[in-house]
Parts: sequence; C-alpha cells; structure tokens
Amino acid sequence: MTRTPTDPDATAVADLAHELGVLKRVRRAGWWQVGVRDPESVAEHSLRVAQLAGLIAAEEGADPARAAYLGLWHDSQETRTTDLPHSARPYVARTAGNEAVTRDQVARLPEAAARTVTGAVAEYEERTTPEARCAKDADLLECLLQALEYRAAGYQHVQPWIDSSRAGLTTAFARRVADAALAGSTLGWHEQARRTQP
Amino acid sequence: MTRTPTDPDATAVADLAHELGVLKRVRRAGWWQVGVRDPESVAEHSLRVAQLAGLIAAEEGADPARAAYLGLWHDSQETRTTDLPHSARPYVARTAGNEAVTRDQVARLPEAAARTVTGAVAEYEERTTPEARCAKDADLLECLLQALEYRAAGYQHVQPWIDSSRAGLTTAFARRVADAALAGSTLGWHEQARRTQP
Amino acid sequence: MTRTPTDPDATAVADLAHELGVLKRVRRAGWWQVGVRDPESVAEHSLRVAQLAGLIAAEEGADPARAAYLGLWHDSQETRTTDLPHSARPYVARTAGNEAVTRDQVARLPEAAARTVTGAVAEYEERTTPEARCAKDADLLECLLQALEYRAAGYQHVQPWIDSSRAGLTTAFARRVADAALAGSTLGWHEQARRTQP
Amino acid sequence: MTRTPTDPDATAVADLAHELGVLKRVRRAGWWQVGVRDPESVAEHSLRVAQLAGLIAAEEGADPARAAYLGLWHDSQETRTTDLPHSARPYVARTAGNEAVTRDQVARLPEAAARTVTGAVAEYEERTTPEARCAKDADLLECLLQALEYRAAGYQHVQPWIDSSRAGLTTAFARRVADAALAGSTLGWHEQARRTQP
Amino acid sequence: MTRTPTDPDATAVADLAHELGVLKRVRRAGWWQVGVRDPESVAEHSLRVAQLAGLIAAEEGADPARAAYLGLWHDSQETRTTDLPHSARPYVARTAGNEAVTRDQVARLPEAAARTVTGAVAEYEERTTPEARCAKDADLLECLLQALEYRAAGYQHVQPWIDSSRAGLTTAFARRVADAALAGSTLGWHEQARRTQP
Amino acid sequence: MTRTPTDPDATAVADLAHELGVLKRVRRAGWWQVGVRDPESVAEHSLRVAQLAGLIAAEEGADPARAAYLGLWHDSQETRTTDLPHSARPYVARTAGNEAVTRDQVARLPEAAARTVTGAVAEYEERTTPEARCAKDADLLECLLQALEYRAAGYQHVQPWIDSSRAGLTTAFARRVADAALAGSTLGWHEQARRTQP
Repeated sequence: MTRTPTDPDATAVADLAHELGVLKRVRRAGWWQVGVRDPESVAEHSLRVAQLAGLIAAEEGADPARAAYLGLWHDSQETRTTDLPHSARPYVARTAGNEAVTRDQVARLPEAAARTVTGAVAEYEERTTPEARCAKDADLLECLLQALEYRAAGYQHVQPWIDSSRAGLTTAFARRVADAALAGSTLGWHEQARRTQP
Repeated sequence: MTRTPTDPDATAVADLAHELGVLKRVRRAGWWQVGVRDPESVAEHSLRVAQLAGLIAAEEGADPARAAYLGLWHDSQETRTTDLPHSARPYVARTAGNEAVTRDQVARLPEAAARTVTGAVAEYEERTTPEARCAKDADLLECLLQALEYRAAGYQHVQPWIDSSRAGLTTAFARRVADAALAGSTLGWHEQARRTQP
Repeated sequence: MTRTPTDPDATAVADLAHELGVLKRVRRAGWWQVGVRDPESVAEHSLRVAQLAGLIAAEEGADPARAAYLGLWHDSQETRTTDLPHSARPYVARTAGNEAVTRDQVARLPEAAARTVTGAVAEYEERTTPEARCAKDADLLECLLQALEYRAAGYQHVQPWIDSSRAGLTTAFARRVADAALAGSTLGWHEQARRTQP
Repeated sequence: MTRTPTDPDATAVADLAHELGVLKRVRRAGWWQVGVRDPESVAEHSLRVAQLAGLIAAEEGADPARAAYLGLWHDSQETRTTDLPHSARPYVARTAGNEAVTRDQVARLPEAAARTVTGAVAEYEERTTPEARCAKDADLLECLLQALEYRAAGYQHVQPWIDSSRAGLTTAFARRVADAALAGSTLGWHEQARRTQP
Repeated sequence: MTRTPTDPDATAVADLAHELGVLKRVRRAGWWQVGVRDPESVAEHSLRVAQLAGLIAAEEGADPARAAYLGLWHDSQETRTTDLPHSARPYVARTAGNEAVTRDQVARLPEAAARTVTGAVAEYEERTTPEARCAKDADLLECLLQALEYRAAGYQHVQPWIDSSRAGLTTAFARRVADAALAGSTLGWHEQARRTQP
Repeated sequence: MTRTPTDPDATAVADLAHELGVLKRVRRAGWWQVGVRDPESVAEHSLRVAQLAGLIAAEEGADPARAAYLGLWHDSQETRTTDLPHSARPYVARTAGNEAVTRDQVARLPEAAARTVTGAVAEYEERTTPEARCAKDADLLECLLQALEYRAAGYQHVQPWIDSSRAGLTTAFARRVADAALAGSTLGWHEQARRTQP
C-alpha cells in the first residue's frame, strides 16, 4: 500500500524533517505541574538552548557553532519519547539511551546526514568535550530563565525549578549569567532598547 | 531607578537571553492569513531551520554545524521587528538591515559573545558561503514542510506558500527533499517507526 | 520551613486534589504526532472514558457506577508520568506499575479515602472483572471517537489510531458502538436535537 | 438524506458519546470574568468533581462509586446549554431542568443505558441521598481548589469564587478539605513527591 | 471595604470598559459543537459585524456609521449572559431582554454616555430602522463567512450554520454578498493583493 | 484559472470581509514582549476602541457613532501589515500610510462601500475632527485598560505601556477615565453587578 519513493535518500530526510516538526507540539511537561496550561514547546526550549550554548562557548573559549549544534539536537529524541518530568523517575526508566533513539530516527538517512546527527548526539551524551558541557549548561540555564519568565507572568511556584537548574551548572560563565538573571529583570532588555532609541 | 548590575557582562547576556525568549511567542504571521489561529512561533520555525541547515550542509559538502549556526540566528531580530508577511511589502520598508538590529541587540555583550552572533548574522545576510546558502534553503524548505503539515491538518489554501518556497531553493539537495516531501506523507516517519518496532 | 498542617488527613486530600488538577493540563501525547497543536487533556479523555464505561456496563449487564469509577481513576497516575505515546515503547519501560504510583499518591490519605482509590486502580489493572473490561473498552472507544472527531476537524492521518483502538475491543456492545460510529457522523446528535426542537 | 443506521441502539450511544465530547470544549464561563483567557473545560471540571465525590463519600461513609457517578453526569447537560455564569441569573431562566435535558439526550438510547443516566441525574438533582450531597460538595470544592490554582498562577480576583464555594459546603469532610486547602499550597503534593523520591 | 471613587462618572465608564473586556474572552459557543476547540470571541465576531453593517448600509442607502454603531453593541450583553447556542432554546429562556441587561450595565454611567448605548441597543432590538436591519444582516452574514472560513480550515460540519444564516438575510445587498461568498474563496483577497503588488 | 465572478461588486465585499477576518488572528504584538503567550487580537482591541470612542465622544460633545466608526477601521490595515511594536521603529519605516493600504483594500469595492471606508480612515489619520481625537484617545485608553487587566492576571511588567498610553491622551474625559481606572479595580463592575442582584 506504501509507494516506493523514487528518491529514498531525500524521502528519508523529508520524513525526519516531518518527525522533527513534532517538537513544535511536544510541551515541556514540568511546567504543567506548576500550573502553566500552555507551556513552551520542546522546539522553543531547544532553540534558546542552542543560542545560549553558542554564547557560553564564546566566553568559555570553546567552539560556539559546535556547542550550539549539540544543543540543537539534545532533545530531538522527544518526538518519540516526549518530555518526561522528574516526577516520573521512580516509575519509568529508559531502556535505551538517546543515542539509540537517534539511531532509529536516522536509520534510512544518507550517510553524511545520518553521521552529523549521531555524532552530535553522542558527543552531547558523553559530556566530555567543553562544547558538550556548554550545551548542557545552556539546557539548565534555559530552564532557569524560563522559570523567571513564568514568575514575571504571575506563576508563584517556580523556585524548585530555579534551584535545581542553578545547582547543576558547571561552567563559570553560565553560573555568572544565572546569578545576573536572578538579580535582574526579565524586561531589562526592553528598557535598554527604549533608552537607545531616538 | 535602575540598579547598576555588579556583573555587567553576565547581565548583558542574561538580558539578551530574555529578549530571545520573545521568539517563543512571536508567531509566523503569514499563516494567520491562511486561517491558522495559533500558528507556530518564530522559535519553533528557527529550530527546524537550523536542523535542516545541518542536514542539507552534510549532503552538500558544507559544514553542518556552521550552516546550522547561521540558521539559529537568522530570524533572531524578530524579537524587535516581529515577522512581517509578504503582504506588508508595498507599505513597509526596512530602514536598517538585520545586521543593524543584531548590533543593537549585542551592544553590551562581552566581546567574544557579541562577535559570534554578529559574525553569524553577517555571513547569513551576505549569502556568499555555501553554509549561508544551505541555511537560506533550510528557511524556505521549513516553510514548505510546514505548509504540507497544515494541509494535512485540514487547511486548504497553502499552495502559494508551497510554490514560492519551492521556487526559491538553490541547492540540489534541498530541491530533492522538497520534491520528496511533495510526493510523500507528513506521517511517513510514523509508519516507518511502527514497522520497525518489536 | 513547611508548616505542619493542623488537619493532616484533610490536607492530604487537598494535596491529592491539587495533584489531580494536573490532569487538566497533561495532553494526550499521541495526537501531537498527528499534527494536533492543542489536543485534549487527560482529564477530558478520562471523563468520557468513565461515562462510556457506565453506558457499556449498563448494556453488558455489569455495574455502571463501578465500571465508571474504574474509568475515572485509570489514568490518574499521569500527573507524575504524563501520557507516554506508543512510539516511546522501544526506549522507555515502566519500572513500577500504576498501582505503585497510586500507592505513593495516596500514601498520606486517611484510610477509607486511600482504599477506595487503590481498590479501583487494582481492579482496573487486573482486568478480571466485567467492570474492568468495560472500563478498558471505554478507554479504547474514547480514543476511536476522538480520532473520528479530529478527522471531522480536518486531520487526515488518524486511521492508525482508529484501527488499533477498534482491534483491542473485547465486549460486544463496545464493538457495536465503534462500528456504528465508523458508519455515522460526529454531528449526528446535533441533527437529532434540532429535529426534535419546536 | 439521512441514512437509517443498521444498529440504531449502538448508533444512539455513539451519537451521545459524540455529544459528550462537546464537554471537552465548553469552557467554565465564570473564569472569563476573572480574566482567564483559556479556562478549563466542563469536562476537566467534571472529572475532578467525580474524583472528589468518591473521596468525600469514602470519608463520609457513603458509597464512593455512586457519589462519583453522580458527579460524572452532573454537568452533562451543558453540551446543549453551555455553562451559564451567575451574572446571567437576572436575565435568563431555566424553563426545563437538567432532568429534561438528559431525557432528550438519551431519548434514543437502549433502555439500560438510558436508565443509568437518567437515574444518576435525577438522584443528583433531588439532593436527598448522602451520595448526592457528597457530589454537590465536590462540585463546590472543585471550584474552590481551581480558584486557588488560578491565584497561584497570578490571577488576583478569585476571592468571590472561593467565598461562595466555601459557604455552600454541607458535609463535614468537604469543609475540612476546603479549610486545609485554604491553609496550604497548591504545590504541596509536589514537595511531598520529591521528598519521598530516592 | 470599597473605596468611594473620587470621580464616580469616570469610574463608572472605566468599570463598563473592563466589563466590555470580557467580550474578548467569551467564545461563540455554537462552534464548540462543530468541533472547534478555540473558536473566535464575541468581540472578534462583533467587530466584523459592525464593519459589515457599515458596508451593507453604504450600498443599501442607509447610514453606515449608525448601522455599524448598532452592530458594535449588539452582543455587548454577553459579558453577563455569555453566548447561548440554539441548542439551549428548549431549556433556557430570557426573562429580561437585552435592553434590560444594557440598562443594568450603564446604570451608573453619566447621562450622555448611558444614553448613547441604550439608544443603540433599543434601535437594534426593535429592528424597525434600515440601519437596524443592516446590522442584523451583518450579524448573520458574519456567521456565514466564519463558517466558510472554518470549512477552509478543515471543519466538515458547518453547513447548518451556513443555511440558517443565509435564510435569515433580509437586505438585497447582504444576500448578494452571501451568494458571492458561497461561490468564491476565503483567500480570494490574498490572490488579488499579490497580483497588484510590484 | 480564476473564475470571473458573476457579481463583481458583491464578490469584492465578500473578499474584503474575509480579509477583515484576519484581524481575528493578528495578535497585538507588544504584549509578547511582556510575556503574554496568547495576547488579544487586533479585532478584540478594535472593538473596545470603537466602543470607548463612542462613550468618550458622548461625554465630549462629539458624535458617538462617527467616533466609533473611526475606531472601527483604525487598525483595519493590519490584515496586511500586522501590528508593528514600538521596538521595530528604528529598523522599519512605513513607505505608504494607512490611507494607501485602505485604498488597495477597497480598490474593487462598489463606490459607496469604498467611500465609507476611505472617508473614515482619512478622517482618523488627519486627527483634525473631535471624533478623530476621541477615537485616538480610545485607542490609547484601551491599551491602558488592557495593561491593567494583564497586571490583574499576574503580569508584572506592564508599567511602560500604562505610562505611554496615559501620556498620549488629549481629551479631558479620556484622562478622567484613565485616572479612575488606575485608582480602581478591573473587577469593580462585577462587584456592582452582584450587589444589585436580587
């Protein structure tokens, strides 16, 4: 019943691209517990993770593009697994790691395309390169910033998310940004932008 | 009235990070015209652009991480400008390009962090490197794929968005993926995933 | 830092009630894969499951209130685990069943309140009573009806959800309702209602 | 123009099930007045009402499954009437009670299915059994808990909803739970859950 | 406990303005029955009603501003009553008309402000002026156009809403617009706009 | 490929009406920057602008219906331009004013219909009549009231929007309403409504 595609390599990339589109809809599940009815998507989280990874890497002397690339793919498995909150841990276990999910996702891709994804996921999961550490800190820092933004939107109970994110940071610059964010305002950028306008 | 931050470099990065958070909320405006009440955000679009840029670059012999990095920042100016649809063009003009917006956004950033962003934006806007061309094709291809996904969700009038995206592609691989997507199904990946499950 | 409540029994019930409120926000994750941006919540699914369980039980000669009660609690563990889609199965395993989650949820409840929940969950999970079988069929039938409703809203790719739900039904009456739904219209009730109005 | 269904009993149940699906979309209208743009649905409210009815009945010595069953159907008429806020009362009157709506809803159902619904609605509306009183208290308590959750999400003006819900409670246990909720936190359950995790 | 305002006239207008803000949240309830999870608000409906009333009046030789003004206030009572769907009619009756609701809404307003609203509502409800007939036709035509737009978004079951709206039209020009809309496309305007662009 | 419509005048009005439907989806972009994920639409804003314009005009001795009519069309160009936030001003300029957009929008309309819209837009943009000044104040006042409503919903950073709206008001009555709103409560109307109920 399934037509054989005339260009299987391109079809496999199109299929993966549609699968990655699911990240636009998968919600970051922890925020539901805080009371957020329509929290941001995994895609929205991942974009800022990748951008923060680039900025942190720049200041930590690592490769910004590589750090960002790891951030870009770090939750791409959640098209299939969704985002499991911490509260699930006593009841649910991963029987296959993110590398295994990625391997299945890219199984039909042409070689170079497959390799660039599996390489990024493996490096991120191993956490041994400076870029992987910057990307992991970006993941935590993004959550902390989002918690502050939800607090500025009225949600009262975000402190546990701030604390656990702050505690996990390992790079000096990510810690400085976290502390600056905790001391600052979520709308500081806007005040600056207005001040410099004619 | 504004406290002077004790760590101005980190504060500037925190401010920019909060500004980038606005991309989670800015909607891709063209889809409103097609009838989509709650279309995807610029952040959601940008993440898949960056991922597609990496995949296209891998197959085109360019640097995947660099191409993705350009994709990551290509719409980051829309925190201030929002996403202007094509229909605005007869009435609205850019008086300063994306490089100028980015320059204002990173004005207070420490040097390395500022440079990594301005460099990425400049390279993308000039469109002279292979990575910039892959990122631009990823931008168009993402729109085409999203149009197909909206059609699969019931929206009838997406053809103009498909046609103009397809017409702008310049790399051979992006064109192949577009044609494969047009011949395939938005849920092909799911069928494959189920088939290979035990 | 935590105040000791003056009425620990009532506090435990209030805590559980707030936890059950999370079901209003947890989304039915499979529909994200079909392209639904804002699918129904687990609470919305569970209500119709319980109502259908009552109707099926009535026609199958089982106890409607009991069957409905099992349906009412059948996904109440998803406050902690969220709704795992089928696509997660190759990668994620339950290390503790729903009874274990429920046990933790009701650990501080007064005895009668705790027992009524654990009893319902245990009976549902064992699937040996007629009421448990009616509730399970209601769970599948609800998904099938929802798939038809998403199709009537424009979503094209719901067939796999229809097929797998239909295949799992075990009671004669649930099968008849599924077949009638497949042959009918999602707005048949509305046509009937208008016809009988003065 | 309407096909005669081959299985009218099953078709009638399928029709009612689609009608009950409307409860997933009907919003609890009072919250719009407080400023909530996307408040919970009647289905989401009803699920927690039914669950609370079971818990209250357990502690009040009534039949939990029966009390829950009454809660399950108590707003099922709102597929046709929607949820009328208190502010409508000076201008709008019910010309036929909930029993009459239910009678129309189940008019074509097979006898056992029809009777289980009409029996539950009649018992709830008469409010003479302990189970009906537990279900009514669950309705009010659910509203009070939801008001506290909206307050924890930032909404300032929920006090009138808390006061009127609290004032209507008639069972001792529901009053204790209300008072415990007013003295406690909407995220108390989460703190407990984390404390007991390894 | 309530402070006496120092400027009671202005306070009354501010209060009414906040009440009118509720129209941004009250949903057009009939669409829930068709399967629309997040249908347009009464405010969104009312704006297009007023605009259409102006256009119809212009072509019918009536006063466009007056017709629009009637449209602007025609559903303003729904801050208190919400939007009752047709299916509620056998069970719910208005005990006081829209003029009575409006009278309560403007009871504390300064005289000129109160009179402009009550005058518009009374003229609309009496339906004797050409402007009132244009505004009523605009109300029906708006519903018909919205039904076509939901159909173009994938919803299959909008025909009853089209038929009843079309049947109620009384002015020649509104009928012509309805027929043109039924023969045309919801995205015709976009095609025109693109054609005339440089 | 495009059918020639048999009634070009009515088709042009139907086309414009569908275009105006886009205002139901275009979001007021500034609120995204404050952290509002799903802010009100331009249509929702415009309705209250028109209603406020009528109320202000009544008290200022201007023509309420005319002032409201100007408010009704004042943002109708945003179907094509969307709502540009203040932060875009250093980078984006209007090359053609709102009159030019309107001229294109009504180009194919029959003459009376076209003239009523272009006349309203021209009068509003010139800001020389009392009605135009009332409508402009209504635009600012609506923003101020909405800011207060978002603050009552938990959003902390709305002060800049309040300040700039208040500063721009030019009529005495609009200023009084703004000051009364700043001194009052967003739910004052509800308290009044309950007090007068039997």
